[in-house]
This record gives sequence, structure tokens and C-alpha cells, in this order.
Amino acid sequence: PFASTVARQLELEQNQNIPDKLKASDFLLPRHIGITPAQEQEVLATVGNKTIEEHLEESVPDSILTTNLSDMFKHDFAKVGEIRSEFLYLENLKEVAKKNKIFKSYQGQGFYPCLVPNVILRNVLENPNWYTPYTPYQAEIAQGRLESLLNFQTMIADLTGLDIANASLLDEATAGAEAMFMAYSQFNKRRNVFFVSDQTYKHTIEVIKTRAEPLGIEVVVGDPNEYDFSDREDIFGVLVQNPGINGNIQDWSAKAEEVHKSKGFFIIGSDVLSLTMTKSPGEMGADIAYGLAQRLGVPMGFGGPHAAYFAVKEKIRFKLPGRVIGVSQDAHGNRALRMAMQTREQHIRRDRATSNICTAQALLANMAAFYGCWHGPKGLTNIAERINYQTHILHDKLTELGYTLHTHKDSMFDSIAIDISNEDLTKDQILSIFEDHEINLGVVNDNTLNVSLNEATTLADLEELITVFGKVKGKDAHVDFENTSYSGIKDSLKRTSEFMTHKIFNSLSSETDMMRYIQTLADKDIGLTKSMIPLGSCTMKLNAAVEMIPVTWPEFGNIHPFAPPSQTEGYMQMINELSDYLMAITGFEAISIQPNSGAQGEYSGLLTIRNFHKANGEGHRNICLIPTSAHGTNPASAMLLGMKIVAVKSDKNGNVDVEDLKAKAELHKDNLSCTMITYPSTHGVFEEDILEITETIHKYGGKVYIDGANMNAMMGHSSIKTIGGDVCHLNLHKTFTIPHGGGGPGMGPICCTKELEPHLPGHAIIPIDGRTKHAVCSAPYGSASILPIPHAYISLCGEKGISKSSALAILNSNYMAAQLEGHYEILYRNKNKKNAHEFIIDTREFKKTAGVTEEDIAKRLMDYGFHAPTVSFPVAGGIMVEPTESEPKIEMDRLCDALRNIREEIREIEEGKADKTNNVLKNSPHTVQVVSSDEWNYPYTREKAAFPVSWIHSRGKFWATVSRIDNVYGERNLMCSCPPMESYE
Amino acid sequence: PFASTVARQLELEQNQNIPDKLKASDFLLPRHIGITPAQEQEVLATVGNKTIEEHLEESVPDSILTTNLSDMFKHDFAKVGEIRSEFLYLENLKEVAKKNKIFKSYQGQGFYPCLVPNVILRNVLENPNWYTPYTPYQAEIAQGRLESLLNFQTMIADLTGLDIANASLLDEATAGAEAMFMAYSQFNKRRNVFFVSDQTYKHTIEVIKTRAEPLGIEVVVGDPNEYDFSDREDIFGVLVQNPGINGNIQDWSAKAEEVHKSKGFFIIGSDVLSLTMTKSPGEMGADIAYGLAQRLGVPMGFGGPHAAYFAVKEKIRFKLPGRVIGVSQDAHGNRALRMAMQTREQHIRRDRATSNICTAQALLANMAAFYGCWHGPKGLTNIAERINYQTHILHDKLTELGYTLHTHKDSMFDSIAIDISNEDLTKDQILSIFEDHEINLGVVNDNTLNVSLNEATTLADLEELITVFGKVKGKDAHVDFENTSYSGIKDSLKRTSEFMTHKIFNSLSSETDMMRYIQTLADKDIGLTKSMIPLGSCTMKLNAAVEMIPVTWPEFGNIHPFAPPSQTEGYMQMINELSDYLMAITGFEAISIQPNSGAQGEYSGLLTIRNFHKANGEGHRNICLIPTSAHGTNPASAMLLGMKIVAVKSDKNGNVDVEDLKAKAELHKDNLSCTMITYPSTHGVFEEDILEITETIHKYGGKVYIDGANMNAMMGHSSIKTIGGDVCHLNLHKTFTIPHGGGGPGMGPICCTKELEPHLPGHAIIPIDGRTKHAVCSAPYGSASILPIPHAYISLCGEKGISKSSALAILNSNYMAAQLEGHYEILYRNKNKKNAHEFIIDTREFKKTAGVTEEDIAKRLMDYGFHAPTVSFPVAGGIMVEPTESEPKIEMDRLCDALRNIREEIREIEEGKADKTNNVLKNSPHTVQVVSSDEWNYPYTREKAAFPVSWIHSRGKFWATVSRIDNVYGERNLMCSCPPMESYE
Repeated sequence: PFASTVARQLELEQNQNIPDKLKASDFLLPRHIGITPAQEQEVLATVGNKTIEEHLEESVPDSILTTNLSDMFKHDFAKVGEIRSEFLYLENLKEVAKKNKIFKSYQGQGFYPCLVPNVILRNVLENPNWYTPYTPYQAEIAQGRLESLLNFQTMIADLTGLDIANASLLDEATAGAEAMFMAYSQFNKRRNVFFVSDQTYKHTIEVIKTRAEPLGIEVVVGDPNEYDFSDREDIFGVLVQNPGINGNIQDWSAKAEEVHKSKGFFIIGSDVLSLTMTKSPGEMGADIAYGLAQRLGVPMGFGGPHAAYFAVKEKIRFKLPGRVIGVSQDAHGNRALRMAMQTREQHIRRDRATSNICTAQALLANMAAFYGCWHGPKGLTNIAERINYQTHILHDKLTELGYTLHTHKDSMFDSIAIDISNEDLTKDQILSIFEDHEINLGVVNDNTLNVSLNEATTLADLEELITVFGKVKGKDAHVDFENTSYSGIKDSLKRTSEFMTHKIFNSLSSETDMMRYIQTLADKDIGLTKSMIPLGSCTMKLNAAVEMIPVTWPEFGNIHPFAPPSQTEGYMQMINELSDYLMAITGFEAISIQPNSGAQGEYSGLLTIRNFHKANGEGHRNICLIPTSAHGTNPASAMLLGMKIVAVKSDKNGNVDVEDLKAKAELHKDNLSCTMITYPSTHGVFEEDILEITETIHKYGGKVYIDGANMNAMMGHSSIKTIGGDVCHLNLHKTFTIPHGGGGPGMGPICCTKELEPHLPGHAIIPIDGRTKHAVCSAPYGSASILPIPHAYISLCGEKGISKSSALAILNSNYMAAQLEGHYEILYRNKNKKNAHEFIIDTREFKKTAGVTEEDIAKRLMDYGFHAPTVSFPVAGGIMVEPTESEPKIEMDRLCDALRNIREEIREIEEGKADKTNNVLKNSPHTVQVVSSDEWNYPYTREKAAFPVSWIHSRGKFWATVSRIDNVYGERNLMCSCPPMESYE
Repeated sequence: PFASTVARQLELEQNQNIPDKLKASDFLLPRHIGITPAQEQEVLATVGNKTIEEHLEESVPDSILTTNLSDMFKHDFAKVGEIRSEFLYLENLKEVAKKNKIFKSYQGQGFYPCLVPNVILRNVLENPNWYTPYTPYQAEIAQGRLESLLNFQTMIADLTGLDIANASLLDEATAGAEAMFMAYSQFNKRRNVFFVSDQTYKHTIEVIKTRAEPLGIEVVVGDPNEYDFSDREDIFGVLVQNPGINGNIQDWSAKAEEVHKSKGFFIIGSDVLSLTMTKSPGEMGADIAYGLAQRLGVPMGFGGPHAAYFAVKEKIRFKLPGRVIGVSQDAHGNRALRMAMQTREQHIRRDRATSNICTAQALLANMAAFYGCWHGPKGLTNIAERINYQTHILHDKLTELGYTLHTHKDSMFDSIAIDISNEDLTKDQILSIFEDHEINLGVVNDNTLNVSLNEATTLADLEELITVFGKVKGKDAHVDFENTSYSGIKDSLKRTSEFMTHKIFNSLSSETDMMRYIQTLADKDIGLTKSMIPLGSCTMKLNAAVEMIPVTWPEFGNIHPFAPPSQTEGYMQMINELSDYLMAITGFEAISIQPNSGAQGEYSGLLTIRNFHKANGEGHRNICLIPTSAHGTNPASAMLLGMKIVAVKSDKNGNVDVEDLKAKAELHKDNLSCTMITYPSTHGVFEEDILEITETIHKYGGKVYIDGANMNAMMGHSSIKTIGGDVCHLNLHKTFTIPHGGGGPGMGPICCTKELEPHLPGHAIIPIDGRTKHAVCSAPYGSASILPIPHAYISLCGEKGISKSSALAILNSNYMAAQLEGHYEILYRNKNKKNAHEFIIDTREFKKTAGVTEEDIAKRLMDYGFHAPTVSFPVAGGIMVEPTESEPKIEMDRLCDALRNIREEIREIEEGKADKTNNVLKNSPHTVQVVSSDEWNYPYTREKAAFPVSWIHSRGKFWATVSRIDNVYGERNLMCSCPPMESYE
């Protein structure tokens, strides 16, 4: 799989007898690991172990510990995973990438070449201050990206003409499916028919079907104009798309009214750019609008990641899927942003969830928002009109050449559908002529081709396109641009309403201004560049530069997800190698690299199990056993598959109550579908009984779904197969170094046994190992353009390196726990007093003794310059700390010091030395404004507020930019788009 | 010159009849300009003009204003300068870049492939927070890069074993020449022979010769081992090089002692990486050591930019050329860094200068320093030893193959010189065989080839190299790496002393740590990302992302400066196009793209004039008329060319006293060489009499050198030719958007008349238009890899765009001046009360009325979040403001508001409302520590100190990280390397 000189170098280096001195040394692994070998000894001494092996033996149960690595990594791991030099790796990957052919893509169908503004490319997508932060749960140190996401919501609400937009969804097809769920959930199962226009993208319809079937929703695909919906009380929703796959935009106002008559919901999927020119979905009467914001400055990337958008009418906002940013105020009444309406979210609603959405596509939504700020309403409209004008020229020429078009000139935007059923040449012959010119057209069906123009289409491109269309007809075609005419779209479809009138979209026209705005926002946020982010269950490890660099190579960026396979060999090689790695790590034989997030991975895994049972004539198996300690997405995902969730008790240590599980499995043995277990558990514990649990499930014919969120504790020491799993998802954005992007992208591929393989998701347009059904998102390989990140990480670290990663993640966790011992109570440790890669400190007593909550501690940590660990999950009143293997010792020591110091601050309250309500914890975080204010009425000093320990000065303190945010105010005064500009000044 | 589809698109777009709606719109120009067209009207109204043309007419004298642009841009400007779309520009430039062939380079001679650590590439070289700041004169808001440069100095002092190193020089050859000057200047012209080892790089010797000749220094090139220097009292210095061009390292201890006996200075040029293994120059008795830090993680880039290093013994530090960073303390006794010993600097010493160095290579020195931190002493040594080991293998194999080698195995580092005089094949035949394998060898001379291995050389590369060496001999050559032996260098040459023991070089081994360290330092500095930097005479305009992106393309980075011309066609096309642009802009017919800085440009321009006179048999012409108002580099450059400087008076408006000039020209008419004039003047004035001045000089046979520092006021409205210049330099890092890099790189190409062309600098290795002599720096095209930046800027803006740039620069300057009118006295405006692109406010009265100096105002501006304008230049007590065309209106308004507010703060002192010594100005800047401190003993409020105006809150205030720095303390307690680590904590 290697470029030739790289191959030879690897061959030479593999020779054990070659002196080490001669071998390359620019290895990622020692850079990825935060502590030095010398520090490793210190750290081991602190946790009371002599060697890393001894420590591992005490932390991981014997029964699951795999010592024979080479046995475990039986897939060709060694063959693909041996480039340790960053230089050679990039050299080689570049060769692989070049196997992708960058043709002019007019395939459209939701994905378009576009011009990424260089100022955004460099300062956002390639800037770790934007790609390394976490989801903005800790709003006080995330005001920058919250503001940008609010811009995104404002832009979408304006463009769609609806009341409220969320902060993005995963992809267009998922967004369509979520629209269906949202409508469905309004009727509490009293309606079960969903009508989808046959003019909707095939991949959207496929995902809708995948998601409808388990819930018993009947999907009717047809031409809505042939139906009368006014008395169809069985239909809960109607979904249409503008433009349709035939290129035509329709004014759906009358149809929406019809649907509303029968109280159904009307959903319009729209091309985001077309909305600048056409009547908005809101104006047409839509209740929900969705689509993709990719063409707003995000590369196609073979399918993703991109931000899908989703907007709804105010009255149904409480079931709006995904994250919503809202405006609130802080403790001093200053404007402050935060995530709003979190009680709606899937992982909170658990088995009452109405959505499969947990994360978002924050980084890409931010790019789209900045693109909106950069171009403004006028600039966006100009881009749209240029495309539309070009499409008019093309329409005229195709007509002149004698093509039969499905598309009407006065109601199209960027796409023309061509009926080729009467052409002399076959579809494949025509496509082949275009391919000879390095041009890809879209395929609607065997009789219909599609041409979609885009922002990157030049006049020269258009000229060439027309020439080739001529060639197909055996004619010389020429276009005289001087004498073209442009009549635009018909008046009845034209947009007359204003949009994006907010100052932020009308004041950043110069690059200097834009660069500073991006910097100003980034300066308000904590990313990994500024602090450790010790989030239990979220594994905020290093996102190395070498891993990130290929992401913005054009060979990965400029590929359409439906490009012919002959043009995507580079992608497929990289994906196949990554697949081999992931199968080796999990111990499985099959994989699907499709799911776009962890929750989508869970859904896909359960879907695979469900399809397996169905195929075996056991479609009635619908019981899913889920421990009460599970992450909320687990029951939510099962619910969306129509499964019946049976809760399994946890014991006092947070472990699964094995007896209860056995009893419930026995009770439901006839209908047992599966269990969902997180391993190691959400409590950070390697449950000793895991084999007993998985054997029990298997005994009753069930399958075991393992939530791989905590895979960072297991890599190379055990595998999902070893503990008895049948299928699992992996969070590539946790364990496998895809950065969190400030709240997405993520990737949640699933691995499974050979037995389950035939039931994995497929794709209707680009079949996957022959599988065409059960797609779970738009693109065949999900967010393919970020896959080089885990590919680089695993390749460069190799099997020993990823084992080392896990071992160090566990060691660091125990090291920090050891330092906090005696200051805080550490929950849920094993018999050797060891925890896994994360641990929970119990703060519940402080509520009683000092009135201090875990939130107070989290906010107070900001005063020490830190991002808080996970709070209130999985234990209310708990703080879960996960240092990962990438943190330097000095940073871990500082966080421990900060936490110990906070413990003393709590003690001051307990001992009456500090006030119960007016103290450094309750008033945290303290902003610069507060501590430099002329007024100081606190019963403690400014220095105690801002610089409670001396090392804060030298570390370069990060300051929260707002004080504690008032969540209640935000919910009571919900505002989810940009407030009037004055409030910014 | 365009890629075919780009060419076609341009052809189409050039058709005037094509509707605008159809044309591309991703243009740089409207993004480069800070104000919008609507704001332009407001701004014009403020300055009392109706149109931009009217404003220009009032600002620029009629006599020089060129209204016929198309006449001015007679070079094929329109042909090359018409890509306005950023997307098409990059598409096209990529095609151009691909014409460069990236062969394996073993050419050595000071330039080596190396592995740029990805974490440094992404977070430093590609990060505007590192590349946009200015030289750290305002130390309080530059502590980040000052710390990094101090790391550089510490690393160099340690590696060379000398006492004090500077913060980098421009390139290796210049550094060698500066070493000569430094030694020369110690003897006050009592000695004039300089001995240079014939083992020194050819390009170094050439520059030494160029620089020696005008001063009457005799350069003797020979084998130092054949001389006895012990009683040579004519010789002021001896320069040797390790390894020499034959690859051998010599212990020069005895020779140094010999030279010292006759009180001469001993200078050693050294490969920076070899110093990790060999006895240091200091240990060998060198007084001065110099060399290039390129191979410490900076791409070759066809010659630069790179940081040269320079270190000396303590006792001669006062003539050390270039910038030196020193440790001092701030007003509160905290450690604080600053530029030390500035009185030594060339532009300060004027015609007593002993150096041609004004700027440095800060960005590249920072990269090298981070590389040092990343690898540490052990890592660097490992890299060096691997190279040395590989060179041993190569040496053995070449010997085995029967090659005659000049290089001794036990005293070599990375290079082997091969005597080919007895080979069957000719030099060209041999080189051609290697070229067939995409390999470049070095050419020492017709009989000698050179092979230099490097950090990027893999075993596979070495194997291939050996195979090809076999092929040349008609033999099969094979290497068995298992059975190689490595004996290292001989004991007497081995380094035994420690180096880089400071903690900073031993604590950043993980990427997380390194990334955070880079971020922490960047957070301490103001760059253009955070504030306007309104530096009069320095033109801190936008450095657009589109301009910066090609700089890190491998096609530009991985090219050796002496690569065969057949491999550098891409570079040459880009350079030729840029040359055409610059000639068109200046109105000249000839150009040299060699000078690496403005001062080097001045030197080169005067050198060209001097050579012209000599060639005409008028070598006696050595009088240079320089106005007293000139920038200090002008007399300094003239002095270094042995010219006699005759000062010309200025009138009370700062203009040249024309009568005095006429009188002096007349007086010196027989010996008049030239005059040096800055236009518009350093006072920001278009002198009306310029034509009279230049005519006068010409009348007496002199030539006119125009300092093009202020070209940003002239582009497209006038030209250097128009005003009567014969030669000028252009600061590509001012007018032409190369970022200042925090203190370098710069580029100072010179343009001149056809008449002067034959006398421009050439290059001995890569002849330039046939010219081989008078090289002024190492590489034929100077810092070639940053030339895409001005190429992009000019291409994308076109002739109208750069004219617009200048017009707006002048307009903005007058706009700000108008806003400050009545608050401050504005100096030196023309009869229409207009200034050029910059203006000076007079603060001298405040010294008397309030004890406030211009420095106090500059530091106080930091409290408002701004970088200060230029202070004390060109007028003591003046503050010179230059907004450039790129600043948004809101930012200019804020700076004016800040300055007006500061005026009121001064008034409070004047009126006795504020204390004369204890006030917001004297105590500025106020750090977070100060304003949040428990103690507050100032007679004003904290808020007045930190937030004197309300908009500071919303702008996102940048805080100085130290209080006012005590310069006197720093000079008295000079420390120019990292202080003990404890002081960091």
C-alpha cells in the first residue's frame, strides 16, 4: 500500500538488525504521550506500581486482559500500521491521496464544489483554537463559538423564513429523517403515514425509510401534486424538496395549506443557496425546513463533515432535535450565550427521545456562519444569481442542441435534469464521454441525468460543458456569453423578503475585519491549546498537527460522495486500511464506516442486530436490556428502533446487577433482542462480570451491543470481541483523535461479527460490499474527509503505540485519583483501588456541609484557568475526570493542585470562615471586568478570586469572558438568534 | 503564463461585453481595502473632498502625479496582472509551482532538506499570530516572541560555545561579511587584510568580496594551514569554515591562538547541526561564530528566508551586528524582555555604522528556536549522529567503489567531496545520471562534486544514492545496513561540553506541551490579528490568507537555491512576473530580486551606482548627499560602500533644503556619486521640489537613489522614474504585503534604469542574466519562497487595485489626521493641509506642560488595547501614524478616540487634576495583575487605568503582560540568554 521509496524504507527499517541509530525518529508516539519515560516512573511510584504492566494488571480484570497482542491484531495490522515517521507517513498518504481524481463535479444532489474563503480556511478550519475545543456546555469559557453558532442559527432562521433554527444536524438525509420523527412525535402514534415527494434526493428517501420501518411508519413516496391531503388524517407529515431532483422549484403554499387542513406537518427540504432568491419555506407555509449548509464554504470531502440545517416554527420548538444556542445573561446582567432548551435533547430524554441527534457539526456550522458573515446577504445573492444565470445559459444551449429537459427555465435554480431515454447513446456512453473530459454528471435514474452548476463553475467550465453536450449529439456547440439573456426565476417564486439584516452579516467585508472577528471569538474559548479538558467519557486527547494536515488537501476535499469508484481509489485505500485497523482493535471481522456520530453508531448497531433477527425469522425479538447507569443515548437509540427498553439495575458500585440482568433476560428470553453495555462502564470501571453478562445474553439468543465510548481504556489490552460483544460503535472523535471541533464533527463507525455483516448499513447510490439498503446517513462513508485523522493516529502509533495510549490513559487517571485521594472521595474503584481511564469524585457531601454543588466547583476551576471535567454524569453530584494519555504531567499536577485548593476553599465555608452564599465558589467564574472593577464588595480579596495559586501567573491564565450564566433567565426569555447589534457594543 | 482553463476564463472575462453578473467575484481587492465604498464617502466628507481623485490631487503634487495609468504600466502588467479571483489565482499558481521539480537534494553548501515539525509548521509558520506582528520595539506587548528569540539566542550561544548571540541575521553569506566588518571595525582602519579560508562556501566568499572592495579591504583567499598568522599585523581577521567545502572539520585551536598573537580576530563559520557533535567554535578559540539555522526546521525555499546565526565573545559585544534580545525587569520588578543594546544598531549609528543589518529573520529564528525546544539537545544530537552515521556508510561505499575522496572519514560531518578528475565520465555526464534518478549533487568545482546528507535522508534514499554511484562506475553497488560500522568523528574533534541545558529545551517533548507553549507565547503578543499597528514608515497592511497559502506549498519549500535551472522553471516564471510588476510600478527597466532586506537593498542600489561610475572610469565619484531627515540606514549603507556622506539640510517643514542641496552638489560636482532621497519623505510629505532635486543631481553627473520605504503612498499615482530616480529599493514586507514576521523576514529588491542594469548584483553559482559578480547575499533570488506573497497581492489587485491601495492609504491617513486635528498638532502638511500616507503628531509641548513624553503616550495606548504608532522617528517627540488602506473604519475611529482621550488625560495633568509623576500615562501599561491586585495605591481608579473608554469591553481587549520595562536596568545588567528556569515559574 506504500509509495515505492516509503515501502523500501519500511522494508529496511523492519530489519531488526539495523542499528536504531540509523532509523527515522520523527515518531508521533512519544509526542502523543504527555509524560516522558522518566516521569512515567514517578507516576508509577505515586500509584504504587513498579511497572506499567503491573499497573495494568491491577486495573484491568484478568479475564479480559489480552496479553498476546500479536494474536489480537490478527488483521493485517502490522502491514498497514508500520509507518512511524510523520514525514514518511505524509509522503505516503499524499501518494494515496493522489489516486483520487479531482474531476469537475456537476453531480449536485446536495453536494457542490464551492469556494472556501481562504481567511476562513486558514483561521478556522486549520486553527486548533477552533477545532480542539469541546461542546460548549461550559458556556462561560465558550462565548466565542456560541456567538458563531448563534450567527449560524440566525442565518438559517432568516433564510428559511422560520422562527427558530438549531445549531446544525449531521447531514441532509438525517435531517430529513429527523423532520419525519419530529412530525411523528407530535401525534403520539395516532398517525403513522409519512408522505415523501418523489422529487426528494434518493439518499434522503433511503434514510427516511431506514428510520421509518422500525417504528412502523409507512412511507409513501409519490408526487404530492397528485394527492389531496386536506382530509388525510392518517398522514402526520408531508415532505417535499426544492429544487426537486428534476431541478424544479415549486411554490408549495397551497399544498401546505392543504396539509395543515388535516393538521399534518409540512416539511420543505431546500437548497440553502437557492433560498436567497426564492420564496422561503416559511413563506410557503412550512412547519419545518431542512437542508445542507455545505455549499456555504465547506469542501465536499467525499460526503462530509458538513452542517445540515434545521428550522421550525416557534410553536413546535420543544421537539426541535439537536442543540440550540440561546441568549441569556450572566450574574451581572451582561449578555451571555449558552446552550438552550437542553431538556429536549435526546440523551436527556432517554427512552422518551424523539431524535437520534446528540452532537452537532459545530466546526462546519461555524465555517458556514463565517461564510455568511463574509459574503453577507448581498454577496450570497450574487453568488446564487450567477449560478442561476449560468444555468439559464445551459438550459438555452441544451434546448438548442435538442435535449429533452425535465427542468423549467423559470422555476429552476442550479440544476437541470435531462431525459436521455431518446438519445442515441446510452447513459453509460454519455457519462463516459464526459469522464474523458474529466467531468462528472449526476445520475437521477437510468433515463435521467443531472447537471448542477455551482459557485466554482467558471465561464470556461460552462463553455466546456456545453461543448461536451454538443459532442454527445455529434454537434459543434458554442456559447456566446455576450449575447446571453437572463430572465431569472418567475415572479411568483421570487424572494421579496429581507434576510440576514443583522449587522454581523453586513459589517465584515474586509479580510482584516474578518480575521480579527475570528480571532476575537477564538480568544473567548478554551480549547486544548490553552488547557487540559479533562472530560470524563469524552477523551479530549491530542489532535496532532500531522493528523490534521491531510484533511485540507484538495485530493480529499474536492471529491463528491457519489463520484465514480474509479476516481476514489485513494479514499477507498485509506478507508480500507482504517477499517482493518478498527476491526483489529475491536477484534471483529466486519465494519461500517458510515455513521456520522456516536448516537448514529448506536442506532446503526442496533439496526444491524434488528435486521439480523428479522432475517432469521425472529423479527419479534424487540427487548433491549439497558442498565440504569447507561448514557442517555443508549435508551434513546433503542427507542427509535421501536425496541422495548427493559432497565437493568445497578449495584451500589454502579456496576450492572448481574442477578437482575439474568432474571430479566430469562423473563424476556423469547423476545430478547439485545443488551447495550458500555465498557468500561460509564462509571469508569472495568466490570469484572462482563463475561457472565454477555454469556447470559447469548444464552437467550440475544446479541450484545457494546458502547465503545470508553475504548480509550481498552485498546490493545482487550477487545470488544474478547468481552463477548457482537457489535459496537467507536467514537473516532474520542479515542481516535478526531478533534471535537467545538461540538462536532464526530464519527461513529460500527464493528461487528461476520454473522452480522450482511445486515450492516449499505448505500443506494454507492453500494457498500454490495449492500444497498439501510443507509443511516447521506454519504456512503459518512464524514469521509476526516478519516485521515484516525488513519494517521493509528498508522503512526501502531499496535504497540495504541496499547501504550490506553495504558497511559489508565495510568494518568489513577495518578490523578491518587493525588486527590484524601481530599475528595473517589467513587467506584476496583478491588485493587484502581479505576479505569477516568474516575469520579463525589461532591454530594459539600452540598450539605457548605452548600456547594459540582457546578460551583466546575465554574471555580475556570478561575484557575481550567475547563471543568464532566459534571453530574453519570452520577448526579459527581465530577468525572479523564486526563487521557496526552496530558503533560505538569498540567495534571496543576489541575490536582487546583482541585485540592478548591477543597480548602470549601472547607473555609464548612468552617464558617467564608460565607455560605457569597464566596469564591458561588461567585465564580470571576472575569477581568469583575476583578478590575472599582467596586469590590466581596468578602474575599481580588487576588484570591483571580489568582488563588501562584502558578496561574506563569501558566498564562485563560479568563472566562462572562460571569456565571443565568440559565433560568435564558429559558424564560428564549432568544435563539442574534440580539440587536447595540447589545454587542 | 496561465494554466489552460484559467487562461480561457480570463480571456472570456476580459470581454467587456460579458455581463458583470456572470463574472467571478471572489476578488481580493475589496477584501484588502478596509473601508467599504459607502464608508469611503463618509471618510472623504471628513477630509473635505468629494472624490478620491480630488483628494489625491490635493495630496500629491501635480508635477509628479501620473494620471495616465496605462502609460505608466507599460510593462506587460496587464497581461500578468489580471487574475482577480482568489480561487483562479491559486489554481493557476499551483500549476506554475508544479513546474518546479522536487528532486532529492544532496547539494548542501549550507542548504539542506529538513523535517519541519508539523506542530511548528501549523502553529507558527501558518499562524497569523506569529507572522503578522511587528518588530518587538514595544516590548510590553511582545513578550512572546521576545521569549522565543531569547531561546534562539541561548541555543546559539550554547551551540557555538560563545558568550552572546544575536536574534539572527539575514543569511549565511551576509553573516560572514558582517563578521568581517565587525573585525575590521575593531581596528579603526589600521588594518585592511582579511583572510578567508578557501574551504569557505563560494557564495560566502563572493559576498565578502562584494562588501570588502568598496572599503578597500584586501581579501586573501587561501589555505590557512599554509600561513603563519602570528605576526601578520596587517590582517584584522581570519575566517574559516567547518566543515569546509571538502567536507572536513578542523580543530582550529592552534590557528586561533596564532591569529590572536597578532591581535587579529578569528572567525569560524559552522554548520549548526554539526555543533552538537563537535568541539564548539568558542572552544576552538573563535571570537566570532556564524552560520545558518535553516536546517533547524525551516524549508530550503529556493534560498530563504532563513535565520543566520551570529555569536561573539562578551568583550566585543558592543559591535555585534543586528538585534539582541535582553532580559530586564518591569516597573514592578517582574522579569521582562526587551531589545537590548540598541545604540549599536546600524540605523542608530548612521554614518558611524559598522553593519548593514537593520532587520532580522524573527519568524524563522522562532521556528528554529521551537525546533530546538522540540528536539532538545539529545534529539538534535541524535539527528546529527544519524546523518553522520549515514555519511560514514556512504564514505565506505564510495571508497569501495573506487572513488577518490577529499573527505576524511574521522573528521567529516554530513558532506563528502569527490574528486572526479580521473573519472571516465565528465562532471556533466555524472550529474545527468543522477538527475535521471531525480537526484541533485553539489558542484564544488569542475573537478569536485559534493554529497551532503540531511535529516530527511532515509535509508532507502541512501541505498539509491549508493546504487547510482555504482552505476556511474558501471558497477552494481549494494549496501548491507546491518553490517555497517560507525566510528563517529575522532576524539580530538568531539564535543564534550554540555549545551542547551536550560529547562525550556528539556521540557517540551510532547506535542500538547509544545502546542500550548506556542499558544501561550502568541497570546502575549499583538499582531494584526488583534489590533491595527499604525506604524508610520512600516505599512502594516493586511497579509491576506490567499497570499500566504502558497508559501508552505512543497513545490516552493523543497527547492535548493542552487538547483539546476531546468528544475526551477516555476520559480523563475513567478519571479519574472513579479519582476515585471515591480518594474511597472517603479517605472524602471531593470530589477534585482536579490536583496534580503531594505537596508541590503539600499546597499545594493548604491553598489550599482558605484559600479556604474567605476565602469565609466569615474570611480572617484564617492560623495553621497543625504538629507539630515533621512532614515539612519541611508547614511549607514553609504558608509559601508566607502562613500563620503555630505549632509543636506532640511527646512523647518522637514523638506530638503533645495538651495543647500544645490550648493553642495555644485561644491562636490567632480566627485558627486549620488543622493539618497526618501519619497514621499520620512516626514510623510510629497516634497514639491523633488524634480528640481533630481535634476540638480543629474546635472552634476550624479545618480539618484530613491528609498522606496514609502512606496505605499505612490503606487499607481506616480513612479520612481517619474520623480527622477535612477534606482530604488522596494520593501516587499511593507508595501507589498509580506508580513513582518515579528521582526523579519523582509525583502528589498531594487529596480533601476536600463543604464544601470549591467551593474546590478549577480550570483557566482546561478548567474543572473549572465551576471556573476557583486552578490549581496547567499541565494540568487534572496528569500525566494516568500515572493509568492507580493506576486499574489499585485496579481489579484491589478494595476487599478494597487493604485486604489495607495489612494486609500493616503485617504485614511488624512482621515485620521482630520479626526485628531485640534487635539494634537499635526506636523508637516502640504499647502492644502494634506499629508501623504502617514502623518506626525507633535507631542513635544506635553513634555513641558505635563511632563509627558511620546513614549508615555505609546505605552498608554496599550491600555486601550493598541499597538503604538512609530515614536520618536523621524522627529524626536513625534508620533507617526500610518493606518494603511487595509484598516477598517471602526478601528481607525477607535484609535483616534483613544488618542483624543489620552489628550484629555494629559490635560488633567496640565490642569493639575492629575499628579505629574503618578498618573495613568506614567504608570502605563497596566497589566491584569496590577488592576486586579489587592493593593491599589494609585490616585485614579482601576477602571480608568484599564477601561478608560467603554468600547474596550466589546473590542476584546488585549492586555500587556508586563508593566513598563526598565531599559536602564536591562542595559546595566545585560543578560541575553534565558535566565534560570525558576524565574519563569
